[in-house]
Amino acid sequence: MTRDDARALDAADPLARYRDLFDLPDGVIYLDGNSLGALPKAVPAAIADATTRQWGDRLIRSWNEGWIDAPQRLGAQVAPLIGAAPDEVIVGDSTSTHLFKLIVAALRNNPGRNTVVSERGNFPTDLHIAEGAVACVPGARLRTVDRDDLADAIDADTALLMLTHVHYKTADRFDMPAWTARAHAAGALMLWDLSHSVGAVPLDLTAANADMAVGCTYKYLNGGPGAPAFLFVADRHQAAFANPISGWMGHAAPFEFADAYRPADGMTRWLVGTPPILSTAALEAALGVWVDIDQAQVATKSAALFDILAAAGDALGLACVSPRDPAHRGSHISFRHPHAYAITQALIARGVIGDFRDPDILRLGLTPLYLSHDDVWRAGAILADVMRDEAWRDPAYAERSVVT
Amino acid sequence: MTRDDARALDAADPLARYRDLFDLPDGVIYLDGNSLGALPKAVPAAIADATTRQWGDRLIRSWNEGWIDAPQRLGAQVAPLIGAAPDEVIVGDSTSTHLFKLIVAALRNNPGRNTVVSERGNFPTDLHIAEGAVACVPGARLRTVDRDDLADAIDADTALLMLTHVHYKTADRFDMPAWTARAHAAGALMLWDLSHSVGAVPLDLTAANADMAVGCTYKYLNGGPGAPAFLFVADRHQAAFANPISGWMGHAAPFEFADAYRPADGMTRWLVGTPPILSTAALEAALGVWVDIDQAQVATKSAALFDILAAAGDALGLACVSPRDPAHRGSHISFRHPHAYAITQALIARGVIGDFRDPDILRLGLTPLYLSHDDVWRAGAILADVMRDEAWRDPAYAERSVVT
Repeated sequence: MTRDDARALDAADPLARYRDLFDLPDGVIYLDGNSLGALPKAVPAAIADATTRQWGDRLIRSWNEGWIDAPQRLGAQVAPLIGAAPDEVIVGDSTSTHLFKLIVAALRNNPGRNTVVSERGNFPTDLHIAEGAVACVPGARLRTVDRDDLADAIDADTALLMLTHVHYKTADRFDMPAWTARAHAAGALMLWDLSHSVGAVPLDLTAANADMAVGCTYKYLNGGPGAPAFLFVADRHQAAFANPISGWMGHAAPFEFADAYRPADGMTRWLVGTPPILSTAALEAALGVWVDIDQAQVATKSAALFDILAAAGDALGLACVSPRDPAHRGSHISFRHPHAYAITQALIARGVIGDFRDPDILRLGLTPLYLSHDDVWRAGAILADVMRDEAWRDPAYAERSVVT
Repeated sequence: MTRDDARALDAADPLARYRDLFDLPDGVIYLDGNSLGALPKAVPAAIADATTRQWGDRLIRSWNEGWIDAPQRLGAQVAPLIGAAPDEVIVGDSTSTHLFKLIVAALRNNPGRNTVVSERGNFPTDLHIAEGAVACVPGARLRTVDRDDLADAIDADTALLMLTHVHYKTADRFDMPAWTARAHAAGALMLWDLSHSVGAVPLDLTAANADMAVGCTYKYLNGGPGAPAFLFVADRHQAAFANPISGWMGHAAPFEFADAYRPADGMTRWLVGTPPILSTAALEAALGVWVDIDQAQVATKSAALFDILAAAGDALGLACVSPRDPAHRGSHISFRHPHAYAITQALIARGVIGDFRDPDILRLGLTPLYLSHDDVWRAGAILADVMRDEAWRDPAYAERSVVT
């Protein structure tokens, strides 16, 4: 592929117009939108309004003018992106806290079964939280196995199968309907972590018959650093499943100030405390970008961007650890290299921002809304420069920062 | 007290200059800063910087440029306001989520004891969360009793005494050293909820020998709607107590991406997921207001503001349910009236924003940093007008909104 080929793809790209909805710094090719999405241009005005008018001027009255319903309203905005009904999703807290709630709820709602099964090497917080959650349910335990052993690990004691749909390192994607069916066939509930999927690949929780899901909004959804996460519970489970972190915002009537907890109907019971409104306002504006986007176009462009970098990697003899078949992956590409950390730093020094994942992965995120084929082609060329010049052998690039 | 008397107090008020650090709408006397604090003028610029420069321009690099340490940095800002060491406080999540973590931790660290004792009529989320937390520890239970029966309820089975320092309705304040000593004498741990205390009354958790505390930052600290909450664990307990919601941000080395949870040293282990940075940035700017404030001056002014409204209430024959002795209360004043809801609405219609608390409380918050004695005197005069005109009998004022 030549640069002219990449430019020709841009000329025909139906998503090209979305680039103008984002602010990106000059001189940077941003391949880390799978870690922190770029700033949508609509956000600064939305957050200024939330700060100056809603908080500063309307003060406490804003709770009756849009704040109190924000978790449900944003949940309904996320719903079409994950194939859920508007009243099956709520936004708040963090992915980690949501996982805790759902794991405990699942264990309590699948009596006689004690095991949560998950993948070894899953995103760490999923496993960390599961450790904490099983300790809150007598007899429960966490069992992690390698991906190839997962099918055999699901047995008559499995209460819950918890999987991350797209792997944060490799971009490997599970077949959502198949694994959900496998869990159900064994009598287990199915919980999907969609953090690296939502906004990256087409999702249909309803068609897959999924029970529960969580996901992050600050990656492909561009909701801002630490933006509140979403939580999905299928309608059929909503009346039975209860939130173990039973805070007042999940109460049926929080402003009656009753001593006894009585869970709200529907998804509201999954709320805990007062939601962080300013971060929520940023997310709401960011979600507005997605209203009329065709997910099939996102998937098509993601595949084309991947192919550009995969070809660049092949030409350099880099070991690509991401699946070649777009149906089996998310929207990033990862290369394994013993000097991956230094290579990541050398790329950043040349304006290509990707990230490193311990111990040896160079990870490059492909965000179809604000990356052009030409951007990615140039990133491939810069990667070739870095590898050829061996700039990454400079000791300066080996110095680790706090967040790698 | 005449209006001239109030103005004379303003002329001599050492805190009067802080009014200019806040943006307040014209035509409003804001007596609800105990529910949502007013907007500090420093916040819009701080949040614009966090949005446009830190997120938009620096992107993922900002995690290494101040974001990752924000929970600890803001904890150190809160510490002097509660009489804690800088490394005994962390900021994140919500008060409710923090309560859950600490109640479970306390039960697990006081073996052979099963009961959490708290006050009937405590702020609801404290009791709701305690219900959920005891369900996560085998054998544990919650026992609530009336305030007068608390001392008798603390016994050999009490693992934890959990009290809200200043009552959200009445403003009744517990004697922190005395109740902490009473809990300890019985072998119980002591957890304080400081939501209605911090920024309102002088606090010294260290002198009181408290074990744990939580508190809200969007009331007297003016951190913004749903701003992250703080969590305190006394240094002597930090190595032993563990966070049941064991997320990756509390891991000793989150970016090593290990499967097994290993809690960080110190307060970092109390973190869960990725913190909401934009809401955190607003709080950081708001905390800046407190740097050189003398808490004794805050207490003195609070008492003077209270006396103005207490006198106005007495003249109207209103039943004040808040303690007359400033040492026994927080920084709001509450009146009981069968038509409290309609009276609150009639006051709001005349520009005096207070709030109603079910079933019959008119609650007026007194925030010494941005209220003048004259503001409060005028509020008292408007209250007298409302009561005299019986404006509150207008049926329009009886219509309830979602958030009362």
